[in-house]
Amino acid sequence: MSYQLRIADLPDLVRGAALLGTGGGGDPTIGRTLVAHALRNADGTENSITVLDPDELTEDDFVIPTAMMGAPSVLVERLPRGDEPGNALAALERFLGRTATATMPIECGGINSTIPLLVAAQRGLPIVDADGMGRAFPELQMETFAIYGVNGSPLAIADERGNTAMVDTGADNRRMEWLARGLAIRLGGVAYIAEYAMDGPTVQRTAIPRTLSLALRLGATIREARESHRDPVGALREALADTLYRHGEVLFTGKVVDVERRTTEGFTRGAARIAAFDSDATCHIAFQNEYLVATVDGRVVTVVPDLITILHLETAEPITSETLRYGQRVTVFAISTPDIMRTPEALAVFGPSAFGIDEEFVPVEQIGKFAPSTPT
Amino acid sequence: MSYQLRIADLPDLVRGAALLGTGGGGDPTIGRTLVAHALRNADGTENSITVLDPDELTEDDFVIPTAMMGAPSVLVERLPRGDEPGNALAALERFLGRTATATMPIECGGINSTIPLLVAAQRGLPIVDADGMGRAFPELQMETFAIYGVNGSPLAIADERGNTAMVDTGADNRRMEWLARGLAIRLGGVAYIAEYAMDGPTVQRTAIPRTLSLALRLGATIREARESHRDPVGALREALADTLYRHGEVLFTGKVVDVERRTTEGFTRGAARIAAFDSDATCHIAFQNEYLVATVDGRVVTVVPDLITILHLETAEPITSETLRYGQRVTVFAISTPDIMRTPEALAVFGPSAFGIDEEFVPVEQIGKFAPSTPT
Repeated sequence: MSYQLRIADLPDLVRGAALLGTGGGGDPTIGRTLVAHALRNADGTENSITVLDPDELTEDDFVIPTAMMGAPSVLVERLPRGDEPGNALAALERFLGRTATATMPIECGGINSTIPLLVAAQRGLPIVDADGMGRAFPELQMETFAIYGVNGSPLAIADERGNTAMVDTGADNRRMEWLARGLAIRLGGVAYIAEYAMDGPTVQRTAIPRTLSLALRLGATIREARESHRDPVGALREALADTLYRHGEVLFTGKVVDVERRTTEGFTRGAARIAAFDSDATCHIAFQNEYLVATVDGRVVTVVPDLITILHLETAEPITSETLRYGQRVTVFAISTPDIMRTPEALAVFGPSAFGIDEEFVPVEQIGKFAPSTPT
Repeated sequence: MSYQLRIADLPDLVRGAALLGTGGGGDPTIGRTLVAHALRNADGTENSITVLDPDELTEDDFVIPTAMMGAPSVLVERLPRGDEPGNALAALERFLGRTATATMPIECGGINSTIPLLVAAQRGLPIVDADGMGRAFPELQMETFAIYGVNGSPLAIADERGNTAMVDTGADNRRMEWLARGLAIRLGGVAYIAEYAMDGPTVQRTAIPRTLSLALRLGATIREARESHRDPVGALREALADTLYRHGEVLFTGKVVDVERRTTEGFTRGAARIAAFDSDATCHIAFQNEYLVATVDGRVVTVVPDLITILHLETAEPITSETLRYGQRVTVFAISTPDIMRTPEALAVFGPSAFGIDEEFVPVEQIGKFAPSTPT
């Protein structure tokens, strides 16, 4: 069922998107500000955005996903003007000679939950309640769209000066990522894209459904738990239980004692070390934009594509990889990915080996538990 | 007047193109081999290529120049398949919805004299006897086309795997170069392009005319002088006297004693040092693909956009920057550029300051002469 998304929904949405962003995808508050601005009329009234359930799409629909690509650490210092993703969409429409009937996120995490909302608000287009990652991943071939046969090409890329480029690598989505990343680096580290254009049945076959609504619900869950003085992490676990994601689990609690971070090759890469409050145990988390693998005392406790999130200890507010700081008191919280993202085809594209991590994928719910320490 | 270019003409053409390439533009013998192959039929007969005088073009003509871009030092180790520049042309035609009536070189030096010949031979298109640099330069905005108001965008770029990209930066040709260079680097250091599409009158207004014929004539001049045991450098000076280039001059003779060369940011950069045979004098030549500035004992003797060439001492065969070697016995020979390339607008784009060279442009014929040493 379609519904209307309003400005008042955005704080919950971006909180949930930051959670599903697993540290990456860029700070969604930047996107929230842009979307709210686009929905406000000069006379003080507000517009809303139509959120389409993927089941409502037909063969006549032509969905063009839109997104930001680049290093989140650059994004926070180089804010978008606001018209870049719409320019990318328009460039792709011109190239294909076809007009989009809706836009869609390519990932349901971070700023990329809000970029298609911005396009939808500006263009008066609906947004499809689905995405191609079911979380956030750093690279453009890491899409369920790609895994299940959709070409990312042609891809349109736009910068803040009105320049555009098109990349067409046919069925080679990895090469598309490589060339588009090269352009994003040349454009200053961040750029805006439109790619993986597809019809309605293809969305239904290849996308992770209803992840925009999921982000909205998870964000609301955290807020409501805070307001009623309940444990927000426990509330999150309950909320996940009847979704495609099912399993949520606290991996570790402690204090951030070290963050190493560098912006390189168009990504924010690095690692964080978290010390337990009441023992010598240490949790280590490596990231490439997103948190990829969490170890406790050298033993893997969660690995991609399962979701690793870092939450403020008291508020459960998600912390993105570029805002992680020494001294933060945190909960490391893992979420199981949907089954469609754990197939052999899917693991080949965004499992541990795709990131050079020399570990077999083991579902987080099957990894032997480490007893988290308690705050002192 | 149009004429037919045949396989037998290619050796002279590429020799002259290497001369006008001022060390850059890539080894034209690679292009010669590809063009000869494209002109030979299976039954042993040969095709030829129609060379159009720019004055023959009309408003109905649609000329799309084609070229290689990248580091010549990479090109010699990574030969083209042969269909890349044609694929770039076809991608631009599709994007613009218009078919080319002819192709044209963007520079009249090095392999880029032969790339449009390859496209012409494969497609049965004529080639226009003109170009946009009157020599070779390393960057895509360094075109008389650009200086006199033609946009390089949209630019199509193709690799050897059939992948293509389009860059559209409107009137910002410098930004186009920046993005296209980024793609060329990602494509392995060399790529093939189609850009600066224009009609006939625009070619007449902005191109350096008859530089393909000039290369052919200069290449023949060197060969004929060798065959008749005359001084090829003297013959070159005579041949230049009644062209747009007018002035040729020996700057230095000596032995190459040092070459420093690196492939960086998509270019071959470096410098060579040449020691005189019979004195302590030293000539130093800096290059970015092309030879840019020649000094003798620290004093500038020629600077871009005037042409600096390095010729084998005995044969006057031009030596490209990526084949320059310790021990070569050479003549450093300068040629004045056409007046259209010495205007303030032109010098702003490809004069010394465009290359970070802190020297005023002084025409080579006005710089005080240095007496070249004689071979021992």
